[in-house]
Amino acid sequence: MKLKMTLGDLRAFMGREFPQVVDNFVIEDVGAREMTVRMAVSEKNLRPGGTVSGPSMFALADVSMYLAILALIGPKALAVTTNCSIDFMRKPAAGADMIAKARVLKLGRMLAVGDVLLYSVGQDEPVARAGLTYSIPPES
Amino acid sequence: MKLKMTLGDLRAFMGREFPQVVDNFVIEDVGAREMTVRMAVSEKNLRPGGTVSGPSMFALADVSMYLAILALIGPKALAVTTNCSIDFMRKPAAGADMIAKARVLKLGRMLAVGDVLLYSVGQDEPVARAGLTYSIPPES
Amino acid sequence: MKLKMTLGDLRAFMGREFPQVVDNFVIEDVGAREMTVRMAVSEKNLRPGGTVSGPSMFALADVSMYLAILALIGPKALAVTTNCSIDFMRKPAAGADMIAKARVLKLGRMLAVGDVLLYSVGQDEPVARAGLTYSIPPES
Amino acid sequence: MKLKMTLGDLRAFMGREFPQVVDNFVIEDVGAREMTVRMAVSEKNLRPGGTVSGPSMFALADVSMYLAILALIGPKALAVTTNCSIDFMRKPAAGADMIAKARVLKLGRMLAVGDVLLYSVGQDEPVARAGLTYSIPPES
Repeated sequence: MKLKMTLGDLRAFMGREFPQVVDNFVIEDVGAREMTVRMAVSEKNLRPGGTVSGPSMFALADVSMYLAILALIGPKALAVTTNCSIDFMRKPAAGADMIAKARVLKLGRMLAVGDVLLYSVGQDEPVARAGLTYSIPPES
Repeated sequence: MKLKMTLGDLRAFMGREFPQVVDNFVIEDVGAREMTVRMAVSEKNLRPGGTVSGPSMFALADVSMYLAILALIGPKALAVTTNCSIDFMRKPAAGADMIAKARVLKLGRMLAVGDVLLYSVGQDEPVARAGLTYSIPPES
Repeated sequence: MKLKMTLGDLRAFMGREFPQVVDNFVIEDVGAREMTVRMAVSEKNLRPGGTVSGPSMFALADVSMYLAILALIGPKALAVTTNCSIDFMRKPAAGADMIAKARVLKLGRMLAVGDVLLYSVGQDEPVARAGLTYSIPPES
Repeated sequence: MKLKMTLGDLRAFMGREFPQVVDNFVIEDVGAREMTVRMAVSEKNLRPGGTVSGPSMFALADVSMYLAILALIGPKALAVTTNCSIDFMRKPAAGADMIAKARVLKLGRMLAVGDVLLYSVGQDEPVARAGLTYSIPPES
Protein backbone atom coordinates (compact mmCIF):
# COMPACT_ATOMS: atom_id res chain seq x y z
CA MET A 1 0.00 0.00 0.00
CA LYS A 2 1.47 3.31 -1.08
CA LEU A 3 1.87 6.22 1.32
CA LYS A 4 0.04 9.42 0.42
CA MET A 5 1.92 11.46 3.01
CA THR A 6 5.63 11.53 3.82
CA LEU A 7 7.10 12.03 7.28
CA GLY A 8 7.48 15.72 6.44
CA ASP A 9 3.89 16.00 5.22
CA LEU A 10 2.60 14.42 8.41
CA ARG A 11 4.67 16.68 10.65
CA ALA A 12 3.50 19.77 8.80
CA PHE A 13 -0.10 18.55 9.03
CA MET A 14 0.23 18.07 12.81
CA GLY A 15 1.68 21.54 13.29
CA ARG A 16 -1.08 23.12 11.24
CA GLU A 17 -4.11 21.17 12.50
CA PHE A 18 -3.12 20.35 16.07
CA PRO A 19 -0.89 23.25 17.18
CA GLN A 20 -1.83 22.66 20.82
CA VAL A 21 -0.35 19.13 20.94
CA VAL A 22 2.34 19.15 18.26
CA ASP A 23 5.05 19.56 20.89
CA ASN A 24 3.88 16.51 22.85
CA PHE A 25 3.67 14.05 19.98
CA VAL A 26 6.67 13.65 17.70
CA ILE A 27 6.29 11.48 14.60
CA GLU A 28 9.46 9.43 14.53
CA ASP A 29 8.92 7.15 11.60
CA VAL A 30 6.33 6.20 9.01
CA GLY A 31 6.23 3.09 6.86
CA ALA A 32 3.73 1.23 4.75
CA ARG A 33 0.94 0.69 7.27
CA GLU A 34 3.23 1.48 10.21
CA MET A 35 3.80 4.51 12.36
CA THR A 36 6.07 5.34 15.29
CA VAL A 37 5.17 8.28 17.53
CA ARG A 38 6.97 9.53 20.65
CA MET A 39 5.11 11.23 23.48
CA ALA A 40 7.11 13.66 25.60
CA VAL A 41 6.08 12.85 29.15
CA SER A 42 5.82 15.91 31.35
CA GLU A 43 4.29 16.78 34.70
CA LYS A 44 0.79 17.05 33.27
CA ASN A 45 0.79 13.42 32.03
CA LEU A 46 1.54 12.02 35.48
CA ARG A 47 -0.71 10.52 38.08
CA PRO A 48 -0.05 10.42 41.82
CA GLY A 49 2.68 7.84 42.29
CA GLY A 50 4.58 9.20 39.33
CA THR A 51 3.19 6.96 36.63
CA VAL A 52 1.86 8.10 33.24
CA SER A 53 -1.93 8.50 33.33
CA GLY A 54 -4.34 6.27 31.42
CA PRO A 55 -5.83 9.14 29.40
CA SER A 56 -2.32 10.16 28.28
CA MET A 57 -1.64 6.63 27.06
CA PHE A 58 -5.03 6.52 25.36
CA ALA A 59 -4.20 9.82 23.63
CA LEU A 60 -0.89 8.44 22.37
CA ALA A 61 -2.49 5.25 21.01
CA ASP A 62 -5.26 7.25 19.37
CA VAL A 63 -3.03 9.84 17.68
CA SER A 64 -0.65 7.14 16.40
CA MET A 65 -3.38 5.17 14.69
CA TYR A 66 -4.92 8.39 13.35
CA LEU A 67 -1.61 9.37 11.74
CA ALA A 68 -0.99 5.85 10.41
CA ILE A 69 -4.34 6.01 8.64
CA LEU A 70 -3.82 9.56 7.37
CA ALA A 71 -0.50 8.49 5.87
CA LEU A 72 -2.46 6.01 3.75
CA ILE A 73 -5.49 8.10 2.83
CA GLY A 74 -4.07 11.61 2.71
CA PRO A 75 -4.68 14.78 4.71
CA LYS A 76 -8.10 15.61 3.34
CA ALA A 77 -9.96 12.90 5.19
CA LEU A 78 -11.57 13.41 8.55
CA ALA A 79 -11.25 10.05 10.28
CA VAL A 80 -13.01 9.59 13.61
CA THR A 81 -12.31 6.97 16.30
CA THR A 82 -15.31 4.71 16.76
CA ASN A 83 -13.85 2.08 19.12
CA CYS A 84 -10.75 1.62 21.22
CA SER A 85 -10.06 -1.39 23.40
CA ILE A 86 -6.94 -0.79 25.47
CA ASP A 87 -5.15 -3.13 27.89
CA PHE A 88 -2.87 -1.59 30.49
CA MET A 89 -0.28 -4.27 31.22
CA ARG A 90 2.63 -2.71 33.10
CA LYS A 91 3.37 0.48 34.97
CA PRO A 92 5.15 2.93 32.67
CA ALA A 93 8.32 4.55 33.95
CA ALA A 94 7.64 8.04 35.31
CA GLY A 95 10.62 9.93 33.95
CA ALA A 96 10.67 8.31 30.51
CA ASP A 97 9.04 9.31 27.24
CA MET A 98 6.67 6.84 25.65
CA ILE A 99 6.75 5.32 22.16
CA ALA A 100 3.76 4.02 20.20
CA LYS A 101 4.12 1.56 17.36
CA ALA A 102 0.91 1.46 15.33
CA ARG A 103 0.04 -0.78 12.42
CA VAL A 104 -2.97 -0.61 10.10
CA LEU A 105 -4.50 -4.08 9.68
CA LYS A 106 -7.39 -3.08 7.48
CA LEU A 107 -8.13 -0.04 5.39
CA GLY A 108 -11.64 -0.35 4.01
CA ARG A 109 -13.85 2.17 2.33
CA MET A 110 -15.72 2.96 5.54
CA LEU A 111 -13.67 1.54 8.41
CA ALA A 112 -9.98 1.26 9.22
CA VAL A 113 -8.75 -1.13 11.93
CA GLY A 114 -5.35 -1.42 13.53
CA ASP A 115 -3.46 -2.05 16.72
CA VAL A 116 -0.84 -0.24 18.76
CA LEU A 117 1.83 -1.25 21.26
CA LEU A 118 2.97 1.38 23.78
CA TYR A 119 6.44 1.33 25.30
CA SER A 120 8.27 3.27 27.99
CA VAL A 121 11.60 4.34 26.51
CA GLY A 122 14.23 2.11 28.10
CA GLN A 123 11.95 -0.87 28.78
CA ASP A 124 11.74 -3.84 26.40
CA GLU A 125 8.26 -5.02 27.31
CA PRO A 126 5.23 -3.07 26.11
CA VAL A 127 3.25 -1.28 28.83
CA ALA A 128 -0.05 -1.23 26.97
CA ARG A 129 -1.74 -2.52 23.84
CA ALA A 130 -4.77 -1.23 22.00
CA GLY A 131 -7.01 -2.15 19.08
CA LEU A 132 -8.70 0.80 17.37
CA THR A 133 -11.34 1.32 14.71
CA TYR A 134 -11.74 4.53 12.75
CA SER A 135 -14.66 5.56 10.63
CA ILE A 136 -13.65 7.11 7.30
CA PRO A 137 -16.26 9.49 5.95
CA PRO A 138 -17.20 9.19 2.28
CA GLU A 139 -15.36 11.54 -0.06
CA SER A 140 -17.39 14.59 -0.90
CA MET B 1 -23.94 -3.98 48.60
CA LYS B 2 -23.18 -1.38 51.24
CA LEU B 3 -21.29 1.80 50.46
CA LYS B 4 -18.04 2.34 52.35
CA MET B 5 -17.79 5.99 51.28
CA THR B 6 -20.45 8.69 51.20
CA LEU B 7 -20.69 11.46 48.62
CA GLY B 8 -18.83 13.70 51.07
CA ASP B 9 -16.10 11.12 51.66
CA LEU B 10 -15.58 10.71 47.93
CA ARG B 11 -15.38 14.46 47.29
CA ALA B 12 -12.89 14.90 50.11
CA PHE B 13 -10.85 11.98 48.76
CA MET B 14 -10.75 13.54 45.27
CA GLY B 15 -9.63 16.89 46.64
CA ARG B 16 -6.86 15.31 48.67
CA GLU B 17 -5.55 12.71 46.20
CA PHE B 18 -6.22 14.37 42.85
CA PRO B 19 -5.97 18.12 43.51
CA GLN B 20 -5.00 18.74 39.88
CA VAL B 21 -8.29 17.43 38.47
CA VAL B 22 -10.79 17.94 41.27
CA ASP B 23 -12.17 21.06 39.59
CA ASN B 24 -12.84 19.22 36.31
CA PHE B 25 -14.69 16.23 37.72
CA VAL B 26 -17.61 16.83 40.06
CA ILE B 27 -19.18 13.83 41.78
CA GLU B 28 -22.90 14.46 41.47
CA ASP B 29 -24.39 11.34 42.96
CA VAL B 30 -23.43 7.96 44.40
CA GLY B 31 -25.64 4.92 44.89
CA ALA B 32 -25.23 1.24 45.53
CA ARG B 33 -23.02 0.29 42.60
CA GLU B 34 -23.79 3.52 40.75
CA MET B 35 -21.99 6.79 40.28
CA THR B 36 -22.72 10.02 38.43
CA VAL B 37 -19.83 12.36 37.59
CA ARG B 38 -19.92 15.65 35.69
CA MET B 39 -16.96 16.85 33.64
CA ALA B 40 -16.63 20.58 33.17
CA VAL B 41 -15.76 20.99 29.50
CA SER B 42 -13.29 23.78 28.86
CA GLU B 43 -11.03 24.88 26.04
CA LYS B 44 -8.42 22.25 26.85
CA ASN B 45 -10.88 19.35 26.35
CA LEU B 46 -11.74 20.42 22.83
CA ARG B 47 -10.51 19.19 19.49
CA PRO B 48 -10.47 21.20 16.28
CA GLY B 49 -14.08 21.45 15.16
CA GLY B 50 -15.18 22.19 18.68
CA THR B 51 -15.94 18.66 19.83
CA VAL B 52 -14.79 17.08 23.10
CA SER B 53 -11.62 15.04 22.59
CA GLY B 54 -11.49 11.25 22.88
CA PRO B 55 -8.90 11.31 25.69
CA SER B 56 -11.14 13.66 27.71
CA MET B 57 -14.06 11.26 27.34
CA PHE B 58 -11.82 8.32 28.22
CA ALA B 59 -10.69 10.21 31.34
CA LEU B 60 -14.29 10.83 32.39
CA ALA B 61 -15.28 7.17 31.92
CA ASP B 62 -12.19 6.01 33.79
CA VAL B 63 -12.57 8.32 36.79
CA SER B 64 -16.27 7.51 37.13
CA MET B 65 -15.69 3.77 37.32
CA TYR B 66 -12.74 4.30 39.67
CA LEU B 67 -14.93 6.29 42.06
CA ALA B 68 -17.81 3.81 41.80
CA ILE B 69 -15.44 1.03 42.87
CA LEU B 70 -13.85 3.11 45.65
CA ALA B 71 -17.30 3.80 47.06
CA LEU B 72 -17.69 0.04 47.49
CA ILE B 73 -14.22 -0.90 48.73
CA GLY B 74 -13.16 2.22 50.60
CA PRO B 75 -10.39 4.76 50.15
CA LYS B 76 -7.46 2.57 51.12
CA ALA B 77 -7.42 0.46 48.02
CA LEU B 78 -5.32 1.28 45.00
CA ALA B 79 -7.37 0.07 42.05
CA VAL B 80 -5.76 0.14 38.61
CA THR B 81 -7.47 0.09 35.20
CA THR B 82 -6.51 -3.04 33.28
CA ASN B 83 -8.87 -2.78 30.30
CA CYS B 84 -11.17 -0.24 28.75
CA SER B 85 -13.20 -0.78 25.63
CA ILE B 86 -14.88 2.45 24.57
CA ASP B 87 -17.30 3.12 21.72
CA PHE B 88 -17.66 6.68 20.49
CA MET B 89 -21.17 6.88 19.08
CA ARG B 90 -22.13 10.52 18.61
CA LYS B 91 -20.40 13.87 18.48
CA PRO B 92 -20.62 15.55 21.90
CA ALA B 93 -21.83 19.13 22.00
CA ALA B 94 -18.92 21.57 22.21
CA GLY B 95 -20.23 24.04 24.74
CA ALA B 96 -21.85 21.52 27.07
CA ASP B 97 -20.54 19.70 30.12
CA MET B 98 -20.52 15.93 30.05
CA ILE B 99 -22.11 13.47 32.46
CA ALA B 100 -20.96 9.91 33.14
CA LYS B 101 -23.23 7.28 34.61
CA ALA B 102 -21.18 4.32 35.83
CA ARG B 103 -22.39 1.04 37.27
CA VAL B 104 -20.37 -1.75 38.88
CA LEU B 105 -21.43 -5.14 37.46
CA LYS B 106 -18.96 -7.26 39.36
CA LEU B 107 -16.85 -6.68 42.43
CA GLY B 108 -14.59 -9.67 42.92
CA ARG B 109 -11.61 -10.15 45.16
CA MET B 110 -9.16 -9.39 42.35
CA LEU B 111 -11.14 -7.78 39.54
CA ALA B 112 -13.99 -5.30 39.31
CA VAL B 113 -15.97 -4.87 36.07
CA GLY B 114 -18.47 -2.24 35.09
CA ASP B 115 -19.77 -0.06 32.33
CA VAL B 116 -20.33 3.64 31.75
CA LEU B 117 -22.58 5.74 29.55
CA LEU B 118 -21.40 9.26 28.68
CA TYR B 119 -23.84 12.08 27.89
CA SER B 120 -23.58 15.65 26.69
CA VAL B 121 -25.71 17.77 29.00
CA GLY B 122 -28.84 18.65 27.06
CA GLN B 123 -28.84 15.60 24.76
CA ASP B 124 -30.91 12.51 25.53
CA GLU B 125 -28.84 9.98 23.64
CA PRO B 126 -25.49 8.82 25.04
CA VAL B 127 -22.43 9.95 23.10
CA ALA B 128 -20.17 7.11 24.22
CA ARG B 129 -20.21 3.85 26.12
CA ALA B 130 -17.39 1.97 27.81
CA GLY B 131 -16.74 -1.29 29.60
CA LEU B 132 -13.92 -1.19 32.13
CA THR B 133 -12.00 -3.67 34.27
CA TYR B 134 -10.02 -2.69 37.35
CA SER B 135 -7.50 -4.80 39.20
CA ILE B 136 -7.86 -4.64 42.96
CA PRO B 137 -4.61 -5.35 44.79
CA PRO B 138 -4.71 -7.74 47.76
CA GLU B 139 -5.12 -6.10 51.16
CA SER B 140 -1.85 -5.74 52.98
CA MET C 1 -37.90 4.45 17.47
CA LYS C 2 -40.51 2.31 15.75
CA LEU C 3 -40.09 -1.44 15.33
CA LYS C 4 -40.09 -2.77 11.77
CA MET C 5 -40.45 -6.38 12.90
CA THR C 6 -42.74 -7.89 15.52
CA LEU C 7 -41.87 -10.82 17.76
CA GLY C 8 -43.62 -13.09 15.27
CA ASP C 9 -41.74 -11.60 12.30
CA LEU C 10 -38.43 -12.11 14.07
CA ARG C 11 -39.19 -15.71 14.99
CA ALA C 12 -40.24 -16.51 11.42
CA PHE C 13 -37.09 -14.83 10.11
CA MET C 14 -34.89 -16.93 12.43
CA GLY C 15 -36.59 -20.15 11.37
CA ARG C 16 -36.17 -19.29 7.70
CA GLU C 17 -32.65 -17.88 7.70
CA PHE C 18 -30.99 -19.79 10.54
CA PRO C 19 -32.72 -23.18 10.63
CA GLN C 20 -29.64 -24.80 12.18
CA VAL C 21 -29.76 -22.66 15.34
CA VAL C 22 -33.41 -21.69 15.68
CA ASP C 23 -33.95 -24.34 18.34
CA ASN C 24 -31.08 -23.05 20.49
CA PHE C 25 -32.05 -19.39 20.54
CA VAL C 26 -35.58 -18.43 21.50
CA ILE C 27 -36.62 -14.82 21.14
CA GLU C 28 -38.53 -14.08 24.33
CA ASP C 29 -39.32 -10.41 24.01
CA VAL C 30 -38.71 -7.42 21.77
CA GLY C 31 -39.14 -3.76 22.64
CA ALA C 32 -38.10 -0.42 21.25
CA ARG C 33 -34.32 -0.90 21.10
CA GLU C 34 -34.45 -3.90 23.42
CA MET C 35 -34.36 -7.65 22.90
CA THR C 36 -34.46 -10.67 25.20
CA VAL C 37 -33.18 -14.00 23.89
CA ARG C 38 -32.95 -17.34 25.72
CA MET C 39 -30.27 -19.90 24.87
CA ALA C 40 -31.10 -23.52 25.58
CA VAL C 41 -27.93 -24.87 27.19
CA SER C 42 -27.19 -28.45 26.17
CA GLU C 43 -24.21 -30.78 26.32
CA LYS C 44 -22.54 -29.18 23.31
CA ASN C 45 -22.38 -25.74 24.99
CA LEU C 46 -20.46 -27.06 27.97
CA ARG C 47 -16.79 -26.99 28.80
CA PRO C 48 -14.99 -29.44 31.07
CA GLY C 49 -16.08 -28.58 34.59
CA GLY C 50 -19.66 -28.21 33.44
CA THR C 51 -19.69 -24.50 32.72
CA VAL C 52 -21.06 -22.86 29.57
CA SER C 53 -18.27 -22.23 27.05
CA GLY C 54 -17.05 -18.78 26.05
CA PRO C 55 -17.92 -19.24 22.37
CA SER C 56 -21.50 -20.20 23.33
CA MET C 57 -21.84 -17.01 25.37
CA PHE C 58 -20.32 -14.99 22.55
CA ALA C 59 -22.85 -16.54 20.14
CA LEU C 60 -25.73 -15.60 22.42
CA ALA C 61 -24.55 -12.00 22.79
CA ASP C 62 -23.98 -11.70 19.05
CA VAL C 63 -27.34 -13.12 17.97
CA SER C 64 -29.23 -10.96 20.50
CA MET C 65 -27.73 -7.74 19.22
CA TYR C 66 -28.21 -8.84 15.63
CA LEU C 67 -31.93 -9.42 16.26
CA ALA C 68 -32.30 -6.16 18.20
CA ILE C 69 -30.90 -4.29 15.19
CA LEU C 70 -33.00 -6.23 12.68
CA ALA C 71 -36.12 -5.35 14.65
CA LEU C 72 -35.28 -1.69 13.99
CA ILE C 73 -34.12 -1.86 10.38
CA GLY C 74 -36.16 -4.76 9.01
CA PRO C 75 -35.32 -8.17 7.58
CA LYS C 76 -33.80 -7.00 4.32
CA ALA C 77 -30.58 -5.70 5.76
CA LEU C 78 -27.46 -7.78 6.09
CA ALA C 79 -25.76 -6.49 9.23
CA VAL C 80 -22.28 -7.79 10.06
CA THR C 81 -20.51 -7.74 13.44
CA THR C 82 -17.39 -5.61 13.26
CA ASN C 83 -16.38 -5.52 16.94
CA CYS C 84 -17.30 -7.30 20.14
CA SER C 85 -15.71 -6.65 23.49
CA ILE C 86 -16.94 -9.19 26.01
CA ASP C 87 -16.20 -9.45 29.75
CA PHE C 88 -16.71 -12.81 31.42
CA MET C 89 -17.50 -11.96 35.04
CA ARG C 90 -18.94 -15.04 36.75
CA LYS C 91 -19.17 -18.76 36.10
CA PRO C 92 -22.54 -19.58 34.53
CA ALA C 93 -24.54 -22.40 36.08
CA ALA C 94 -24.10 -25.65 34.13
CA GLY C 95 -27.65 -26.94 34.09
CA ALA C 96 -29.38 -23.61 33.49
CA ASP C 97 -30.40 -21.86 30.28
CA MET C 98 -28.98 -18.43 29.61
CA ILE C 99 -30.78 -15.15 28.95
CA ALA C 100 -29.42 -12.19 26.99
CA LYS C 101 -30.77 -8.70 27.39
CA ALA C 102 -29.59 -6.52 24.51
CA ARG C 103 -30.13 -2.82 23.97
CA VAL C 104 -29.33 -0.71 20.92
CA LEU C 105 -27.55 2.51 21.95
CA LYS C 106 -26.99 3.91 18.49
CA LEU C 107 -28.49 3.17 15.13
CA GLY C 108 -26.61 5.18 12.53
CA ARG C 109 -26.63 4.95 8.77
CA MET C 110 -23.48 2.84 8.69
CA LEU C 111 -22.90 1.57 12.22
CA ALA C 112 -25.09 0.30 15.04
CA VAL C 113 -23.75 0.04 18.60
CA GLY C 114 -25.24 -1.65 21.62
CA ASP C 115 -24.56 -3.67 24.70
CA VAL C 116 -25.73 -6.96 26.16
CA LEU C 117 -25.95 -8.48 29.63
CA LEU C 118 -25.95 -12.28 29.88
CA TYR C 119 -27.60 -14.11 32.78
CA SER C 120 -27.83 -17.70 33.97
CA VAL C 121 -31.49 -18.42 34.63
CA GLY C 122 -31.93 -18.45 38.39
CA GLN C 123 -29.02 -16.10 39.20
CA ASP C 124 -29.55 -12.38 39.79
CA GLU C 125 -26.10 -11.18 38.84
CA PRO C 126 -25.06 -11.06 35.18
CA VAL C 127 -22.37 -13.59 34.18
CA ALA C 128 -21.06 -11.59 31.22
CA ARG C 129 -21.39 -8.25 29.50
CA ALA C 130 -20.55 -7.24 25.94
CA GLY C 131 -20.43 -4.16 23.75
CA LEU C 132 -20.97 -4.81 20.05
CA THR C 133 -20.75 -2.85 16.82
CA TYR C 134 -22.48 -3.87 13.61
CA SER C 135 -21.84 -2.53 10.16
CA ILE C 136 -25.02 -1.83 8.20
CA PRO C 137 -24.50 -2.03 4.47
CA PRO C 138 -25.96 0.74 2.30
CA GLU C 139 -29.41 0.03 0.85
CA SER C 140 -29.26 -1.15 -2.73
CA MET D 1 10.73 -16.96 28.83
CA LYS D 2 11.10 -20.72 28.95
CA LEU D 3 8.40 -23.06 27.71
CA LYS D 4 6.99 -25.49 30.28
CA MET D 5 5.18 -27.54 27.62
CA THR D 6 6.43 -28.79 24.26
CA LEU D 7 4.33 -29.15 21.13
CA GLY D 8 3.85 -32.82 22.04
CA ASP D 9 2.82 -31.98 25.62
CA LEU D 10 0.26 -29.48 24.39
CA ARG D 11 -1.23 -31.88 21.85
CA ALA D 12 -1.51 -34.62 24.47
CA PHE D 13 -3.11 -32.16 26.89
CA MET D 14 -5.70 -31.12 24.29
CA GLY D 15 -6.58 -34.74 23.52
CA ARG D 16 -6.99 -35.53 27.20
CA GLU D 17 -8.82 -32.43 28.42
CA PHE D 18 -10.78 -31.38 25.35
CA PRO D 19 -11.55 -34.62 23.48
CA GLN D 20 -14.65 -33.05 21.92
CA VAL D 21 -12.70 -30.35 20.05
CA VAL D 22 -9.25 -31.84 19.58
CA ASP D 23 -10.03 -32.72 15.96
CA ASN D 24 -11.07 -29.17 15.11
CA PHE D 25 -8.04 -27.37 16.53
CA VAL D 26 -4.57 -28.52 15.51
CA ILE D 27 -1.60 -26.99 17.26
CA GLU D 28 0.85 -26.29 14.46
CA ASP D 29 3.68 -24.55 16.22
CA VAL D 30 4.70 -23.22 19.63
CA GLY D 31 7.45 -20.74 20.40
CA ALA D 32 8.48 -18.54 23.28
CA ARG D 33 5.27 -16.57 23.81
CA GLU D 34 3.89 -17.58 20.40
CA MET D 35 1.41 -20.16 19.24
CA THR D 36 0.00 -21.17 15.87
CA VAL D 37 -3.28 -23.11 15.77
CA ARG D 38 -5.22 -24.31 12.73
CA MET D 39 -8.99 -24.68 12.79
CA ALA D 40 -10.50 -27.22 10.43
CA VAL D 41 -13.49 -25.43 8.94
CA SER D 42 -16.45 -27.72 8.37
CA GLU D 43 -20.16 -27.31 7.71
CA LYS D 44 -20.93 -26.57 11.35
CA ASN D 45 -18.65 -23.52 11.40
CA LEU D 46 -20.42 -21.87 8.51
CA ARG D 47 -23.05 -19.17 8.43
CA PRO D 48 -25.57 -18.63 5.65
CA GLY D 49 -23.61 -17.19 2.74
CA GLY D 50 -20.84 -19.69 3.30
CA THR D 51 -18.63 -17.61 5.60
CA VAL D 52 -17.09 -18.80 8.87
CA SER D 53 -19.28 -17.78 11.84
CA GLY D 54 -18.22 -15.23 14.43
CA PRO D 55 -18.46 -17.69 17.34
CA SER D 56 -16.15 -20.10 15.49
CA MET D 57 -13.57 -17.35 15.02
CA PHE D 58 -13.96 -16.35 18.65
CA ALA D 59 -13.39 -19.99 19.67
CA LEU D 60 -10.21 -20.17 17.59
CA ALA D 61 -8.82 -16.93 19.06
CA ASP D 62 -9.68 -18.05 22.58
CA VAL D 63 -8.17 -21.54 22.36
CA SER D 64 -4.98 -20.19 20.76
CA MET D 65 -4.33 -17.72 23.55
CA TYR D 66 -5.24 -20.34 26.15
CA LEU D 67 -2.65 -22.74 24.73
CA ALA D 68 -0.01 -20.00 24.39
CA ILE D 69 -0.42 -19.25 28.10
CA LEU D 70 -0.46 -22.92 29.12
CA ALA D 71 2.80 -23.43 27.26
CA LEU D 72 4.33 -20.84 29.59
CA ILE D 73 2.73 -21.81 32.91
CA GLY D 74 2.26 -25.57 32.49
CA PRO D 75 -0.75 -27.87 32.37
CA LYS D 76 -1.78 -27.64 36.01
CA ALA D 77 -3.15 -24.14 35.85
CA LEU D 78 -6.78 -23.39 35.15
CA ALA D 79 -6.73 -20.12 33.24
CA VAL D 80 -10.05 -18.43 32.51
CA THR D 81 -10.82 -15.80 29.84
CA THR D 82 -11.91 -12.55 31.48
CA ASN D 83 -12.03 -10.24 28.43
CA CYS D 84 -11.90 -10.56 24.68
CA SER D 85 -12.15 -7.67 22.27
CA ILE D 86 -12.37 -8.95 18.71
CA ASP D 87 -12.48 -7.02 15.43
CA PHE D 88 -13.89 -8.77 12.39
CA MET D 89 -12.15 -7.13 9.44
CA ARG D 90 -12.67 -9.25 6.35
CA LYS D 91 -14.90 -12.09 5.24
CA PRO D 92 -13.09 -15.41 5.70
CA ALA D 93 -13.05 -17.79 2.76
CA ALA D 94 -15.73 -20.50 3.12
CA GLY D 95 -13.83 -23.54 1.99
CA ALA D 96 -10.55 -22.72 3.70
CA ASP D 97 -9.20 -23.64 7.13
CA MET D 98 -8.28 -20.83 9.46
CA ILE D 99 -4.97 -20.13 11.19
CA ALA D 100 -4.51 -18.22 14.47
CA LYS D 101 -1.24 -16.62 15.42
CA ALA D 102 -1.27 -15.75 19.13
CA ARG D 103 1.34 -13.93 21.15
CA VAL D 104 1.55 -13.42 24.90
CA LEU D 105 2.35 -9.79 25.69
CA LYS D 106 2.22 -10.05 29.47
CA LEU D 107 2.36 -12.96 31.85
CA GLY D 108 1.73 -11.65 35.35
CA ARG D 109 0.97 -13.47 38.55
CA MET D 110 -2.75 -12.91 38.22
CA LEU D 111 -3.41 -11.80 34.63
CA ALA D 112 -2.05 -12.74 31.23
CA VAL D 113 -2.65 -10.51 28.20
CA GLY D 114 -2.05 -11.19 24.54
CA ASP D 115 -3.31 -10.71 21.04
CA VAL D 116 -4.22 -12.92 18.11
CA LEU D 117 -4.43 -12.50 14.35
CA LEU D 118 -6.74 -14.84 12.44
CA TYR D 119 -6.12 -15.78 8.81
CA SER D 120 -7.98 -17.72 6.14
CA VAL D 121 -5.52 -20.18 4.64
CA GLY D 122 -4.58 -18.81 1.24
CA GLN D 123 -5.20 -15.12 2.04
CA ASP D 124 -2.39 -12.79 3.08
CA GLU D 125 -4.44 -10.29 5.02
CA PRO D 126 -5.78 -11.18 8.47
CA VAL D 127 -9.56 -11.59 8.68
CA ALA D 128 -9.82 -10.78 12.39
CA ARG D 129 -7.80 -9.56 15.33
CA ALA D 130 -8.40 -9.97 19.04
CA GLY D 131 -6.94 -8.87 22.37
CA LEU D 132 -7.54 -11.27 25.24
CA THR D 133 -7.03 -11.28 29.00
CA TYR D 134 -6.87 -14.44 31.08
CA SER D 135 -7.11 -14.72 34.82
CA ILE D 136 -4.58 -17.11 36.32
CA PRO D 137 -5.73 -18.59 39.63
CA PRO D 138 -3.27 -18.66 42.52
CA GLU D 139 -1.33 -21.91 42.96
CA SER D 140 -2.89 -24.09 45.61
